[in-house]
Amino acid sequence: MQEADIGLIGLGVMGENLALNIADNGYTIAVYNRTADKVDAFLGNAGTLSDKVMGSGDLATFVKMLKRPRSVIVMVKAGEPVDAVIAQLKPLLEDGDVIIDAGNANYHDTVRRFSELDGTGIGFLGIGVSGGEEGARHGPSIMVGGSEAQWQNAEAVLTAISAKFDGEACCAYLGTGGAGHFVKTIHNGIEYADMQMIAEIYGVMRDGLGMSPEECAKVFADWNKGPLDSYLIEITHHVLAARDVGSDLPLVDVIVDAAGQKGTGRWSAIEALNLGITATTIEGAVAARSISSMKEERKRGEDLYGAGIKGNATISLEALEKALLAGKIAAYAQGFAVMAKASEENGWNLPLDTIAKIWRAGCIIRSRFLDQISQSFAGGTSSNLLTQPAFVDLMKDCNGSLRAVVATCAVNELPAPCLSSALAYFDAYRQARGTTNLTQGQRDFFGAHGFKRFDQDGDFHHKWPSLIGK
Amino acid sequence: MQEADIGLIGLGVMGENLALNIADNGYTIAVYNRTADKVDAFLGNAGTLSDKVMGSGDLATFVKMLKRPRSVIVMVKAGEPVDAVIAQLKPLLEDGDVIIDAGNANYHDTVRRFSELDGTGIGFLGIGVSGGEEGARHGPSIMVGGSEAQWQNAEAVLTAISAKFDGEACCAYLGTGGAGHFVKTIHNGIEYADMQMIAEIYGVMRDGLGMSPEECAKVFADWNKGPLDSYLIEITHHVLAARDVGSDLPLVDVIVDAAGQKGTGRWSAIEALNLGITATTIEGAVAARSISSMKEERKRGEDLYGAGIKGNATISLEALEKALLAGKIAAYAQGFAVMAKASEENGWNLPLDTIAKIWRAGCIIRSRFLDQISQSFAGGTSSNLLTQPAFVDLMKDCNGSLRAVVATCAVNELPAPCLSSALAYFDAYRQARGTTNLTQGQRDFFGAHGFKRFDQDGDFHHKWPSLIGK
Repeated sequence: MQEADIGLIGLGVMGENLALNIADNGYTIAVYNRTADKVDAFLGNAGTLSDKVMGSGDLATFVKMLKRPRSVIVMVKAGEPVDAVIAQLKPLLEDGDVIIDAGNANYHDTVRRFSELDGTGIGFLGIGVSGGEEGARHGPSIMVGGSEAQWQNAEAVLTAISAKFDGEACCAYLGTGGAGHFVKTIHNGIEYADMQMIAEIYGVMRDGLGMSPEECAKVFADWNKGPLDSYLIEITHHVLAARDVGSDLPLVDVIVDAAGQKGTGRWSAIEALNLGITATTIEGAVAARSISSMKEERKRGEDLYGAGIKGNATISLEALEKALLAGKIAAYAQGFAVMAKASEENGWNLPLDTIAKIWRAGCIIRSRFLDQISQSFAGGTSSNLLTQPAFVDLMKDCNGSLRAVVATCAVNELPAPCLSSALAYFDAYRQARGTTNLTQGQRDFFGAHGFKRFDQDGDFHHKWPSLIGK
Repeated sequence: MQEADIGLIGLGVMGENLALNIADNGYTIAVYNRTADKVDAFLGNAGTLSDKVMGSGDLATFVKMLKRPRSVIVMVKAGEPVDAVIAQLKPLLEDGDVIIDAGNANYHDTVRRFSELDGTGIGFLGIGVSGGEEGARHGPSIMVGGSEAQWQNAEAVLTAISAKFDGEACCAYLGTGGAGHFVKTIHNGIEYADMQMIAEIYGVMRDGLGMSPEECAKVFADWNKGPLDSYLIEITHHVLAARDVGSDLPLVDVIVDAAGQKGTGRWSAIEALNLGITATTIEGAVAARSISSMKEERKRGEDLYGAGIKGNATISLEALEKALLAGKIAAYAQGFAVMAKASEENGWNLPLDTIAKIWRAGCIIRSRFLDQISQSFAGGTSSNLLTQPAFVDLMKDCNGSLRAVVATCAVNELPAPCLSSALAYFDAYRQARGTTNLTQGQRDFFGAHGFKRFDQDGDFHHKWPSLIGK
């Protein structure tokens, strides 16, 4: 007994894959599942890894299998099930042990759970795990937040199973409380934006330039050799190249254009709003999925307004490539700005360079681009990405293409919510003299909110005419 | 004693003005304030209205002045002070009385307070009051939600003091619980979008066309005679025409371009996200205020990227007018769609036509346009505004101008977050075949999320190549 390096509760696909990954890396893992059959099945199917896995359908027995201080990964459905598992575990654990929630928790829940366990001697870690099922099995990106003291219980195991980029582990402790799940939330928001901008560029190719899925696929394969080199561009190539087995039609032509969402993109937009940080490109991506799911309304809309212009755009593929890069810079600038602000508000001291580093492999947004970002933030700065020298140069080179693409979309009736919001963000960000002086004048007019002046300090009001009776 | 028709707690500017408005309309009002001096000052300054006002610095005495069943308006700072006042009032009130929170409450608080009083016999109304200080004094728009049974206690008074549009009162009971404050929240979100789109159009005039504030002012005065006729366009004219008293410069040229916000715009964006309804134009407006407040960062941005192109745009004033109208339609479509969804989720049965009606006068977004909206929703429909015949015609006429303006802004480095998001919303809304088929393919690739097919029912997966080790 007491021989397992780490324990894992919850044998769904993600949990099973994490457990196998741990065993694969030479660590002994004990598993527990509420339905005991799943434990037996897992142990029975472990094959060559069977000497590294153990488990029980009884929670107390499972806990007794763990080396002290114990680390227990919880990989159950986010929400109440996590609280239920914590409540069951607590009496079985002791001082110095740690509970590790590896699910997609809302970071507010993680903050609460962390506080609830604080002072009990039992640590709590909330870890964001990105990379889907395959990442969990072969190396995810792991964003750790919570009890720093107990992080050492699990550090070796989680570092070992994480993805590697040039030999560096994509796993790091980022801060106390909900830091890990917060960073994962923003990761997902950025992922939404990244995916939606790719979809918009695909729309320009398909509806603006009249390209076939095969032609589009080739372009994305080509782009994956350049600055856009990333997992998402690579799989875009595969998705566009895929053929439906039954009909032999291009697969994208049989897939319904109604995208689901599981909430984390939405959370990231809400957190940005709560922090007062602009994340319009993430918001635009969340909105695009919402509109996409209103398929019947969109059909009605097209009936009323007519199908858009098709095949009339004149824009080069090079401009599309550069526009996508410019859009990405803006979206990532927003995401990192949200994290910088959250770090300040929560006292997390989030290391932005490390975050970019651990996103370079394992996770859905992994890319060469993130290596550039980590280098930019290396000095410990948290200034907006748009002000980092390497990105200033890139943005200078690419923003003209983004302008051309947004203008092309506008004129050709091609929806480009994320690309256009990325451009508007950039143009607002680099405009020293904006137009909210008018807004402030209006607010003083109707609400006596006051305004600042360029030439004097203090708060000022203008004596406005009365419109009573008008 | 017991002769006041209604009571009011909280003699800030808004409270005082509401009280005077009530007295002006022939009703007797009793006032109470935590600082008793304010009560004395108010009563002492009532002038010709002094026979209609009474009050006390003692809460129990104040309550005794009210006719039964009692109505008590609470106009104190939103948040804890409201809860404190309710706690003090509760033991002094009795079955059939009603507490009316007229502050800018977050509707979630209103829902909670409504539930807490539910079953006590004391009713609770949360009312949104729009129109600023002048509206409170001379006729605001009043959005009522909460206890329907006790609404009759205050209905006559609140209807009398509200703004009138062609003789119709801009005051209505909209639904139970937090319906009134929710509608007020969305009103404010729409107001943000409306104001920001005006600011963007002003930006095109100023930076794109090189127009002076006086020239801009004239255009807005002119537009106020056409379809854009509204309070906001009228005050925009006044703000742009105003001159700074000291320097005789145009006032807008001395006002700092950093806009404040008090939270309701942000709330409306968050509620839209929670409901899964696209409100990107409201989100864009909230974001524009956030970016505007980052004045130093924007200066640095301009240093790095250079000042934008100035005076190079070629766009007609007519196109700007129509673009603003098209943008407004999209923004209002979003706001009403959010209310329709909230109504469904909360079982409010919100009357969209009545909401448009009570916004026609008294509030900040009052306009001729809202009369058209109320007519569109008159049949009780809650379909998207973009599908209402009158607006289909308008949008067909105006969307080309919106395209031209968005393209002009993109090419001329003029930030247009709201106008461009309005266009993207329209184009996505009227596109039967969008591009999230690609998104769904990607999600199936990395997360096995599955997709729907056009030609078969059910959920499908594709067998994707493995990218392990790549």
